[in-house]
Amino acid sequence: MTLGRSFTSWVVLVALVLLGGCGGDDGAAGDAGADGGPGPAWALAIHGGAGAPDRSLPVAEQQAYLASLERALRVGQEILERGGPSLDAVEAVIRDLEDDPLFNAGRGAVFNRDGAVELDASIMDGATLGCGAVAAVGTVKNPISLARLVYERTEHVLLVGDGAERFADSMAVERAGPEWFFTEPRWQDLLRTRSREGGGTVGAVALDRLGNLAAGTSTGGRTGKLAGRVGDSPIVGAGTYADNTTCAVSGTGVGEEFIRRAAAYSVSAWMRHRGLSVEDAVRRVVLEELQPGDGGMIAVDRTGRIAMVYNTPGMFRGAADANGRLEVHIWE
Amino acid sequence: MTLGRSFTSWVVLVALVLLGGCGGDDGAAGDAGADGGPGPAWALAIHGGAGAPDRSLPVAEQQAYLASLERALRVGQEILERGGPSLDAVEAVIRDLEDDPLFNAGRGAVFNRDGAVELDASIMDGATLGCGAVAAVGTVKNPISLARLVYERTEHVLLVGDGAERFADSMAVERAGPEWFFTEPRWQDLLRTRSREGGGTVGAVALDRLGNLAAGTSTGGRTGKLAGRVGDSPIVGAGTYADNTTCAVSGTGVGEEFIRRAAAYSVSAWMRHRGLSVEDAVRRVVLEELQPGDGGMIAVDRTGRIAMVYNTPGMFRGAADANGRLEVHIWE
Repeated sequence: MTLGRSFTSWVVLVALVLLGGCGGDDGAAGDAGADGGPGPAWALAIHGGAGAPDRSLPVAEQQAYLASLERALRVGQEILERGGPSLDAVEAVIRDLEDDPLFNAGRGAVFNRDGAVELDASIMDGATLGCGAVAAVGTVKNPISLARLVYERTEHVLLVGDGAERFADSMAVERAGPEWFFTEPRWQDLLRTRSREGGGTVGAVALDRLGNLAAGTSTGGRTGKLAGRVGDSPIVGAGTYADNTTCAVSGTGVGEEFIRRAAAYSVSAWMRHRGLSVEDAVRRVVLEELQPGDGGMIAVDRTGRIAMVYNTPGMFRGAADANGRLEVHIWE
Repeated sequence: MTLGRSFTSWVVLVALVLLGGCGGDDGAAGDAGADGGPGPAWALAIHGGAGAPDRSLPVAEQQAYLASLERALRVGQEILERGGPSLDAVEAVIRDLEDDPLFNAGRGAVFNRDGAVELDASIMDGATLGCGAVAAVGTVKNPISLARLVYERTEHVLLVGDGAERFADSMAVERAGPEWFFTEPRWQDLLRTRSREGGGTVGAVALDRLGNLAAGTSTGGRTGKLAGRVGDSPIVGAGTYADNTTCAVSGTGVGEEFIRRAAAYSVSAWMRHRGLSVEDAVRRVVLEELQPGDGGMIAVDRTGRIAMVYNTPGMFRGAADANGRLEVHIWE
């Protein structure tokens, strides 16, 4: 690199950093993480989709969603509190939400155009950049665990369709038939060919006591999708990313938009290249790169700071950490 | 952003830029683009895989590869010279290479563990960030064209497996049976359960006279892969990326490594966030983020500068532009 180019880069970068500072607070919906002082020894954030309806949602339903989120948070809390790995916490939390019919993942997955479920999931280990994912599987009770097996037992990152089913056969993971995945609200969604406003894609990001980050995401995709359609959730870099040097991220929303913007990796890139905080990085991607209505993201950095930002009316979400934080929200 | 944080970011960024400058010339294999003056009105780069053998490759085989690359370049040249869109050029070049049994895409695809071909491809329009991709299709003669139809005719980005085949049915694209995809060298590869050193994944990146960038990639994946395994080629952000504000990129190599590092998007991020030239950005990713032996990448920016960098013994590649450049290479 010549001195001339270096000086030019300096000026350009400084200008960009200064410009960047202007965009951080423009009417964002979201939650800031812990500020100042040493971070918590562990931290966990979860989401259950950014398709939350407006505040007219009946209180009983609100309470059901919040109870599910709190239950899932406590599953992860128990693992992280005793020093378990973030990857285990992420998997366990997502398994819990996959088994909950309120969310569009595992049991509560939406139906595709053919009236079948096709499930997608991915998981990533921030310590190694190791990752695994599955897409378009129809008989696997917990796709997040199959994704983890792709990471741990194969040389591959992503297995799809029939091949993924056969891999599931060889791994003896728990399977489920159409009766497990049949939920009346999702069937009604298909008949109306639109997704109900309600629980969506699920995801979790975690920092463990060893300082390792992990992220995972699981979904049934979009109601009425074409068979074989794969969204961002099983795409490392789009719906999920984890790198100990930056953050762990999970997204939810219009998957195609997350893919074309490499949304999860983009959060990591803002932190790595521009030195943004995890909050500012997530806000950049959700509030400026994505469009209003596209969805939301959760992230945690290696100091335990948590960001949860969405550009929709609400996002089912929760956060917990070693300092005693334990909270669940739908709106602000 | 507070003044304190801004100043810290400045110092960190400057340090990173200065550090970054040290890594630009460390024994890279590659080709620089045009330097100085106005760029060419159009530009095109192609690759046919970074698994090129060493220079002991018989001269007749070298000449066959170089002739194929030149033929494909001329297909794109013809489109771009008359002012055609970069997206058309990318698709046409890749179709040409898919039909060539020398490369691991379309006709010359490698066999998976079951002795079947499963093809992956993606294409991206840098003007709109519009993109389409297919993975694990077995009967489509030109997966790159099916990927383009996913972009142009659906709301989705990625279709896989049986669903992608059914989409192909509905689009009436040309199909091919096992006899089309059977090539003796690839069968021998499977019997030896390793990929021959030879033509690999194919890709193309182009700048057209309107200033629009496009990128595409097509592959048969890895010899002996598990059924359903999807690599980076159909993953926008991993194997393919195009954004008019930065560059168009296509990669080839160990797909899992490209996915976990969001390699194609990372090139774009180095340009966007740090102001690196396309050459420096590609070198960063191929020579520093990826490991030796992982593969290579080609890219073009909006001024027509071309970068072609690999960390393997060689990469089948070629470049052409409106200034009369037309060259093909295997090694330096």
